[in-house]
Parts: sequence; structure tokens; C-alpha cells
Amino acid sequence: MTSQSLLKPKERIDQLATNDVKIIQSRDVFSYSVDAVLLSRFPNIPKRGQIVDLCAGNGAVGLFASNSTTASIVAIEIQERLADMANRSVQLNKLEQQVRVINDDLANTLNHLKPSSTDLIFCNPPYFKLDEQSRINESEHYLLARHELATNLDAICRISQQLLKTNGHIAMVHRPDRFFEIIQTMTQYNLVPKRIQFVYPKSDRDANILLIDAIKDGKPGGEKFLPPLILHKPDGSYTDEVYQIYYG
Amino acid sequence: MTSQSLLKPKERIDQLATNDVKIIQSRDVFSYSVDAVLLSRFPNIPKRGQIVDLCAGNGAVGLFASNSTTASIVAIEIQERLADMANRSVQLNKLEQQVRVINDDLANTLNHLKPSSTDLIFCNPPYFKLDEQSRINESEHYLLARHELATNLDAICRISQQLLKTNGHIAMVHRPDRFFEIIQTMTQYNLVPKRIQFVYPKSDRDANILLIDAIKDGKPGGEKFLPPLILHKPDGSYTDEVYQIYYG
Repeated sequence: MTSQSLLKPKERIDQLATNDVKIIQSRDVFSYSVDAVLLSRFPNIPKRGQIVDLCAGNGAVGLFASNSTTASIVAIEIQERLADMANRSVQLNKLEQQVRVINDDLANTLNHLKPSSTDLIFCNPPYFKLDEQSRINESEHYLLARHELATNLDAICRISQQLLKTNGHIAMVHRPDRFFEIIQTMTQYNLVPKRIQFVYPKSDRDANILLIDAIKDGKPGGEKFLPPLILHKPDGSYTDEVYQIYYG
Repeated sequence: MTSQSLLKPKERIDQLATNDVKIIQSRDVFSYSVDAVLLSRFPNIPKRGQIVDLCAGNGAVGLFASNSTTASIVAIEIQERLADMANRSVQLNKLEQQVRVINDDLANTLNHLKPSSTDLIFCNPPYFKLDEQSRINESEHYLLARHELATNLDAICRISQQLLKTNGHIAMVHRPDRFFEIIQTMTQYNLVPKRIQFVYPKSDRDANILLIDAIKDGKPGGEKFLPPLILHKPDGSYTDEVYQIYYG
């Protein structure tokens, strides 16, 4: 089967210069952003064991991570259309032995996976509360991916606490303006945030992306705030650090 | 009375190139650091009303702020030796009409000031928990200034809630590794953190200073993380931004 035969109308294949995997996406339905790229590189990735990508979308985060581990990777995505894209990307990269896509609500994760089975959870969840932003003019697919319609922080942290091994990690990307709520919710489920990185669009702008690495049942205190990641130079081009991530 | 006649043995007079005030300090007893300089510039300083500096040390933060406001400034410091230095700095700068130094435990603040009377609180508190660091070889003055012997986060937030007007601000400098505890304690006293800035020794190092601006009885959520402040270039010299702060 050729690569093209795996594509549906208006889909394309994208690839980072720094990663072997190819990702099927579509501007109309779903395409990954810098958030997914940064998330996939943020935690220490275990060499073996089990990695779960909650809110997987088209599977980009787990697929990127597959490059640097032999761990089995499970992508959980509620939207059938997106899970289907992820599944075809798995085929495209011949990763059927390593990556499995489950099309289900993440609340049902324990119907598919054992409790305390997971070494690392990735999560790029919907960022917006239901009351925050107008939802007019968004496609159904983006609506569900961006707004807390089908899941929310509480549901994600509850299932993560059940799914992780003791001392397993959850790596989440989110928006800084919800940082305190995230910390509070994680702490409530004994997911202890340990490494945090703020990402800034330019060096003189407020942070617009937040990366958090929390440990199940970790000892509270001693949190670290990693060096700031600046995305763009004043002229709008990528900083050296981000250029390195995209182009090597 | 000459400037020199206000000095005790081993004391000196320091001044920032960017601020008119002169500060009496002593390496043996207490001298301000970059933390105090950054704190004094972090919040919006009200043009009038009342500003209180809790854990004032030798009074540097309140004295720096006096340059940009006609508000009355009250410095509260538990150590007699430090409060005495602060008092002499007030005289040195002829600020007796604007700045008042109270030598007392901050827990007794409401014996001196009215509740709900204050527009802005500055606080550069002791950073270390009692169990965290060896206290051997520290002078008594530095010991009290650096370790939570005489006060702690809970006491500071409790008194700040009582002292501030509704929508008054508390600006605090602290260490990033206690950020979550600070957020939790502030939130418990309905001091809602709104503006946060992390300060990094170099661009590739973890944050080592934290600046927080919280609002009494503010609406939770929507916290902002300001552009990162980097102190030093790779060669160890000040970055342009910090040079500007110190030398204009």
C-alpha cells in the first residue's frame, strides 16, 4: 500500500526534519502544533514499559516519542475521525507492533489498560473551559480538541492517578493562565508537579505555553522551573533553540 | 549631621545609579541583594495611600520605592539592629516625613496600623524552612533574615490579608522551589496571585528567584507569567536588562 493510498481527501503527510515519523493531518480536521512537538520532547522517556497518550488527537505526540523508546505506546482519542488518522499514521510508519490506538473516551481507559501499568502519560488536553471562549465558527473536531466538552482536568488527573505506576510521570502541556488550577487538581490526585517550563512567544512577551512533569505519589516541594523557552526572535523567525528542534 | 556620622563601625553607604536613595548597610549584619532591587520595581506602585514593607531588613525595598510615590511607607522589621540601620537611612535621605520604621514582630502589625489600610505590601521574607539548611556559621542577623525562625509564610499571608484594602496588592520575592506552597498559602488567605515572574541566573539555568504580585480578594484564574528575566550573559556580565536596572 502506498503512502498516498492511506490518505483521505484534504489530508497531507507532515514530518519534522528531526524525527523519522510521518504524521497524517488535515487543516480542516486536526493538525498538531508546536505544543505537541514540545510536549513529546519534555519528559524523560522511559526506554521500555508502557506510555499512554491521553487526548491523543491524530497521535502525533506518541508517534514522535516512538523514535526514542521501545516502550509500547497507547494513544487514546475520543474522536473517531482523529483516531482513524492516528491509526493510518501508525500503518504509514509500520509501527503496528509498538503503537496502538484506542478510540474511546479516556474515562474508559481502564476498560482497555490495567491500573498502575503505565510509566509515562502524555497529555495535550483541551485548553479552554466551556465558558471562556466563543465556540462559533469552529469545526466539531477542533471544538472537541480545544474545549472541555468531552473531558476536563479533573477527569484526566483522576484516570492518570489510576493508570500510572508509583513514581510514574505525567507530562502535560497547557496554558499558563490555568496553571494554578492545574497544580491544584494534580495535587488533589497526588500527582506532584516537579519540573515546569514556561514557553514565551518572544523574549519580551508573557508566557503562552506551559509544560508540566508530575510524579505519581512524589514527595511535595522542591519544584524546579526550567530555563525559559523562547519561540521567536524579535524579527519573528525561530530562535536557535526552536530551529534546532524543528530542523536539527 | 554628616552622612558619615550616621554610620556605625563596618557600615557603608550604597546607592543604585538609577535611584536617588542611599542605603546604609554592612556585610557583617545585612546588605540588600538583587532580590530586593527586583522586588522594589515589580509591582505597580500606588502614587498615594499607604505602602508597608514587611520583613524590611535595612529598609532598602521601601526606600527604593519612595523615589516613585508620595504614599506613606511603613517598614516593619523585627531585628533591632536592622531597624536601626533602616532608621538612619531614613534620616540620611531626609525621608522622615514619608518613611516610618517600626521595630516589631510583623505579627504585631495591627498594634501599629489599621486593618484594611494598606494599598501595597512588599515582602522579602526569610526563604528557608527551619529543617532545610544547615544554620551553622551564619550570624544571628542573617539567620533571622534567611530562615523562618521569627515568622513564616502563613503568618505573613495572615497579617497581609488583614492589613490590605480590598484589591490591595502584595508583592513578594521568594525562591521557586517553594512556589506551590506560596500559592497555596496565599490562596488560603484569599490573596490571589495574578502576575508572576521567574528570574534565571543565566538563560540556560533553572529559575532561582520568583516574583509574585497577588490581589486581596481578587477573582481566581487568569494568572499571567511575565517575560523571563535573565540576570547574566554567558560570560557572567549583567544582561542589558539588568544593567539598565542597576546603571540606567
